[in-house]
Amino acid sequence: MAALGKDIDDLPKNAANYTALTPLWFLDRAALVHPTRLSVVHESRRYTWRETYQRCRRLASALSTHSIGPGCTVAVIAPNVPAAYEAHFGVPMAGAVLNTVNIRLNESAIAFLLGHSSAAVVMVDQEFFALAEKALKILAEKNNSYRPPLLVVIGDENCDPNSLTYALGKGAIEYEKFLEIGDPEFAWKPPEDEWQSIALGYTSGTTASPKGVVLCHRGAYLMSLSNPIIWGMKEGAVYLWTLPMFHCNGWCFTWSLAAVCGTNICLRQVTAKAVYSAIANHGVTHFSAAPVVLNTIANAPPEETILPLPRIVHVTTAGATPPPSVLFAMSQKGFRVTHTYGLSETYGPSTVNAWKPEWDSLPPETQARLNARQGVRYVGLEGLDVVNPQTMQPIPADGTTVGEIVFRGNLVMKGYLKNPKANEESFANGWYHSGDLAVKHPDGYIEIKDRSKDIIISGGENISSVEVENAMYFHPAVSEVSVVARPDQRWGESPCAFVTLKPGVDKSDEKRLAEDIIKFCRSKMPAYWVPKSLVFGPLPKTATGKVQKHLLRAKAKEMGTVPNSKL
Amino acid sequence: MAALGKDIDDLPKNAANYTALTPLWFLDRAALVHPTRLSVVHESRRYTWRETYQRCRRLASALSTHSIGPGCTVAVIAPNVPAAYEAHFGVPMAGAVLNTVNIRLNESAIAFLLGHSSAAVVMVDQEFFALAEKALKILAEKNNSYRPPLLVVIGDENCDPNSLTYALGKGAIEYEKFLEIGDPEFAWKPPEDEWQSIALGYTSGTTASPKGVVLCHRGAYLMSLSNPIIWGMKEGAVYLWTLPMFHCNGWCFTWSLAAVCGTNICLRQVTAKAVYSAIANHGVTHFSAAPVVLNTIANAPPEETILPLPRIVHVTTAGATPPPSVLFAMSQKGFRVTHTYGLSETYGPSTVNAWKPEWDSLPPETQARLNARQGVRYVGLEGLDVVNPQTMQPIPADGTTVGEIVFRGNLVMKGYLKNPKANEESFANGWYHSGDLAVKHPDGYIEIKDRSKDIIISGGENISSVEVENAMYFHPAVSEVSVVARPDQRWGESPCAFVTLKPGVDKSDEKRLAEDIIKFCRSKMPAYWVPKSLVFGPLPKTATGKVQKHLLRAKAKEMGTVPNSKL
Repeated sequence: MAALGKDIDDLPKNAANYTALTPLWFLDRAALVHPTRLSVVHESRRYTWRETYQRCRRLASALSTHSIGPGCTVAVIAPNVPAAYEAHFGVPMAGAVLNTVNIRLNESAIAFLLGHSSAAVVMVDQEFFALAEKALKILAEKNNSYRPPLLVVIGDENCDPNSLTYALGKGAIEYEKFLEIGDPEFAWKPPEDEWQSIALGYTSGTTASPKGVVLCHRGAYLMSLSNPIIWGMKEGAVYLWTLPMFHCNGWCFTWSLAAVCGTNICLRQVTAKAVYSAIANHGVTHFSAAPVVLNTIANAPPEETILPLPRIVHVTTAGATPPPSVLFAMSQKGFRVTHTYGLSETYGPSTVNAWKPEWDSLPPETQARLNARQGVRYVGLEGLDVVNPQTMQPIPADGTTVGEIVFRGNLVMKGYLKNPKANEESFANGWYHSGDLAVKHPDGYIEIKDRSKDIIISGGENISSVEVENAMYFHPAVSEVSVVARPDQRWGESPCAFVTLKPGVDKSDEKRLAEDIIKFCRSKMPAYWVPKSLVFGPLPKTATGKVQKHLLRAKAKEMGTVPNSKL
Repeated sequence: MAALGKDIDDLPKNAANYTALTPLWFLDRAALVHPTRLSVVHESRRYTWRETYQRCRRLASALSTHSIGPGCTVAVIAPNVPAAYEAHFGVPMAGAVLNTVNIRLNESAIAFLLGHSSAAVVMVDQEFFALAEKALKILAEKNNSYRPPLLVVIGDENCDPNSLTYALGKGAIEYEKFLEIGDPEFAWKPPEDEWQSIALGYTSGTTASPKGVVLCHRGAYLMSLSNPIIWGMKEGAVYLWTLPMFHCNGWCFTWSLAAVCGTNICLRQVTAKAVYSAIANHGVTHFSAAPVVLNTIANAPPEETILPLPRIVHVTTAGATPPPSVLFAMSQKGFRVTHTYGLSETYGPSTVNAWKPEWDSLPPETQARLNARQGVRYVGLEGLDVVNPQTMQPIPADGTTVGEIVFRGNLVMKGYLKNPKANEESFANGWYHSGDLAVKHPDGYIEIKDRSKDIIISGGENISSVEVENAMYFHPAVSEVSVVARPDQRWGESPCAFVTLKPGVDKSDEKRLAEDIIKFCRSKMPAYWVPKSLVFGPLPKTATGKVQKHLLRAKAKEMGTVPNSKL
């Protein structure tokens, strides 16, 4: 039989047929194709794609003038304002790495990040300048030879002018002034290697100290193209920034929006009213939000809403398992919610609950339950499985056997910055280990049962705190609930529920309320799942809005062991 | 100032975070996510994604059993039938390279291809078996030591059973029997290197002998994701195969359909009636076709249509410049036509006439004229320009200066097979040279004026034959027109038009018709553009449906020099 042998592969890469993948080209293209289309809207400010491209090139140019390039980190401490968006292009166009910092962190956490990432520039929104200043003071106090970063303050006419005056008095350069240094026609260079780092983001540290997740141009590019395909997001989509850009680069939607030449609607502060008002005023077609934000939108008082919606609004949710009740309430209001799941380590969501047409005719509550599962891998992800972490064998797709979710492929991070131990552990056996526990259903969809640490082991039985929570969310008085293990004399551990109540609920008789909720639980779940303890009050959360279960576990421990006598 | 230096990039690729890009994973995913959704429909045959995946794995397994793997070429000579689709996955899953052969070629051309590509296997539709047999006979006669390929005949119950009996009598193995050898759970291996070749396709050779265009897994993957984004093609789209899969792998839509988990509707033969009937019966949402096919659809007699369309049907067209009149007629019928442009060397269309909302309010004829331009680069293409081929300097975006279209980036082929000279020429100066001549408009959109060879130079002025043709297409009697240079005593060259008339046009007085058309031309174009010669009759075409202008030029030359006296 004939064969071509190596002739067929012996055609080398050259300047014409191979280019490093990078999402930066999307901006160049958007400015070419839709120069006059709105790119970024922030209150009364409006930019077109031509302007955004020029501003990003100015930023890259100004950074280069200050010798910021490969190997340098630029930190951004800002809410969803135009400068934060521009940094996603301008910083890597200078060859540097973008580190978006969670604005809900305190000064010592920010000090840790800026120190760990050796931030060479800090771009900080005027409202957060004092916070950044405190963080830098901590760093300087800890290290005599600490060389402070270049400070750029992002002014916002919607904020108290005093904070800007204060920042300028402290020697920070104003962002617009900084851009003026730069050349709007700056000849930025794409990365030579697509494996080059583009962004650094720190995990919120629900379990340990923050780890620096490093992402590369290749992964960012592939995620940017996966997002619109998974979500059916068309050219010219109007995207509302309810999701912070500092969460994993807004799940890479920052770059996706340039790929689809869409419009970014900024939002300094997310309230139900602001979301509905943006839908009414800006033609919003898409937004992303954690379930807690959806909860707020779904439970907004009628005077803050604009229902019925003027058009279909698509929502992706991720960041925590959305309670089916929240999915149900959103779909009742006309939002089309796509449930995705992922981690900072996977460029944001990289699994999706792909909707099946055959679900259309199911009762809405069944739909919500099916949609609450984490689903299947993204189109850009090559491997997703649930395995026994010891043997790495896939668990059976029976909907009950629990294993660890593992990822593999181009949507997995490069690794953790300066943390070989964590890299070794998390990349063991050729897969990225998420630490999330899940089952696989017979249809191949995965469903998270818990973080490894959040499982409650009662009388030798595993109880998924998430499942208990999901059921409790359907109680009409429950706004938020978190369930953890409490020491139990008889069972070893038993579920302890921390509950916040919806506004308007009569809180005068907490005892009766608790009894009512427990009774509700008995009707909805196996007896051994029913919380033996119930506490009302606010839930402690991380800066990324995740409930800090370790604090609740500590609190439950402090409450003492559940006595034998208690049912 | 602080800097991380190499720490930020010093995170190596590993099995968890890096995988070679390949469209093959899309099939694996489609079978997982939508196992029971229709994948391929061919007359009364129906396959689901689970079945298609199994069949492709069987094919890969059966090929492997026959020692077909890396370095081997598998040729497919077939119309748009399920086996042709399956080959797009099964062949590369075995590590081999797919060569889809144009079924309109004659035996000597096919012999050239099969010999040049050293085809180890020929999969041939029963209707084309005799043709393949003749081609192989030519090869055997030319070369005593020629080792014939493994012959697999693709049976089709919609064809004359005799041709299948004949093929089996000649020792070919039937495709379904061949699949039975294979393991439906075959553990196919993705390519180790994404630069590995996935497909080989031969140019139609309008200007020279066919060249073998080699494409790689990486490019095929990126094109597959670009297609749905450019076209707003959603998950679950229903795609009608009017476009032959042997044209550049159906512009990579073969793989795109798996990426969006859509449904492929096969079509052995493209007629207006079959297209409308598929739209009515299969829920078709998208199809692609060369302008000549659109012309047929737009001019179909009412009894073959199902107008008004039951839903919006999206069409991409490419392969030749669509006359504005055809775009106009299609849009009048409710088709939404996206005009794209590219070459086999760019994985199919890699520029798009991105529609602008501001065009919505323009008169339809203006819209059609704007849409007839070749537009801007695809989201997956990094570089597109129009340059002076001598200096490589971009021509001004003035809509009049003509230059050569050049491409650069990941949607450019690996190169031509065993053709270093052609590779050197076409990749000169770090760009792929298309040989197509175009202008760039002030809005950045490019517009083809001609192939380098098709320009008519009359009295020192360049005349774009395409522009003359575009204008003539608006004449109500003109079905197809091609304009070439004819020697001219006074002007050196002058335009000579070859015209076919629409069915139903009274052809009794050709002289009067010719005068009428020329009069029409005078009213629509500069005097020196107006054809001095006009010939009625069918146009000679290549197997890919392109008009063979070199034959018309020869014919025009035979007609002799236009005398000085003629206006």
